Amino acid sequence: MSVSRPSSKRTGRRPGASSTREDIAAAARVRFAEGGYDRTTIRAIAGDAGVDPALVVRFYGSKEALFREVMALPAGVADAFTALADGPRETVGRRLAELVVGVLENPATRTVVLGRIRSATSHPDAAALVRETVSRDMLRLAGALTDDEPLTRATLVGAHFVGVALARHIVLLEPLSTMTPAEVVELVAPTFQHCLTGPLRGG
Amino acid sequence: MSVSRPSSKRTGRRPGASSTREDIAAAARVRFAEGGYDRTTIRAIAGDAGVDPALVVRFYGSKEALFREVMALPAGVADAFTALADGPRETVGRRLAELVVGVLENPATRTVVLGRIRSATSHPDAAALVRETVSRDMLRLAGALTDDEPLTRATLVGAHFVGVALARHIVLLEPLSTMTPAEVVELVAPTFQHCLTGPLRGG
Repeated sequence: MSVSRPSSKRTGRRPGASSTREDIAAAARVRFAEGGYDRTTIRAIAGDAGVDPALVVRFYGSKEALFREVMALPAGVADAFTALADGPRETVGRRLAELVVGVLENPATRTVVLGRIRSATSHPDAAALVRETVSRDMLRLAGALTDDEPLTRATLVGAHFVGVALARHIVLLEPLSTMTPAEVVELVAPTFQHCLTGPLRGG
Repeated sequence: MSVSRPSSKRTGRRPGASSTREDIAAAARVRFAEGGYDRTTIRAIAGDAGVDPALVVRFYGSKEALFREVMALPAGVADAFTALADGPRETVGRRLAELVVGVLENPATRTVVLGRIRSATSHPDAAALVRETVSRDMLRLAGALTDDEPLTRATLVGAHFVGVALARHIVLLEPLSTMTPAEVVELVAPTFQHCLTGPLRGG
């Protein structure tokens, strides 16, 4: 919550600017994750970060721009999706399950994912971010595995992931909400495997 | 939007009371579906229905009570879930897919389902309604099919359904958002079948 942290001696930046910017980002992530896009105000974020609302605008421009920037997943996550295609094809569903359950267990990335899901139900900008993640990161994985309707497969995987995240962390559906991460991996791995490599239609 | 419709000659009710009550319910469903629970006010619902906010309170009590009453699924839907267990076990996933895709295609029930999902991300009461549907209606079906962790299966089916509904109707994920209902049935039937009757863990 403090705005004055020791600044790095190695940069010529204004003391505290970098940490203040990060304080604002951290406060914004929590607000977006807990309240969703629409109910989150720049004033509330500024209050949590202990700064003036005008400073939030100076750093980030608008609420939209702030949302896009602070709710981005770390670049490493996108790369990790693509890397899942390496390795045995018949266990890719399990590797994907381990990756996404890990993302949901890590408090930093969980905040981003749940904030996007909460916001996507009430705001078009947030819905666009969810669409981009699916049509870029998930599609990269599906496209590396098959030529058979990779976008449809990416969409189904994305829908299942969002449904499970919502059930486990937001709606708190038992027993999904109280299982260990390893148990959740076991449960969702076969569905991911089916969506990625199984026969897509029929049944 | 009118509050004065011809009242039924066969009842002794105050003229218009029944239709006013239904006007309020219809306005509330649309507001909850489009804006979610938190952003919907009794004042806005009353405005849409062309009545005084005090009348909404007199008819329904509180916003919570109004939400619970107007966002209930028709009793026939719950019975339809149980009836799915009749018929060949190996095609129950397809029958369930046809039922839920039908619920999402019918404008009246779609409004209720999407309103619950939108509201569940921002309000505990709405989350409780989603939990109840899964742990009662879906569990009735899963329990009629198997003794092997029916609640876990019901939860997975519910999570997949919510994810698909969100992707198709709220986040508008292509190609799921532009498929015909029959195509969506084809896509989700195998996953439902797996969740209901397949080996639950591993992969």
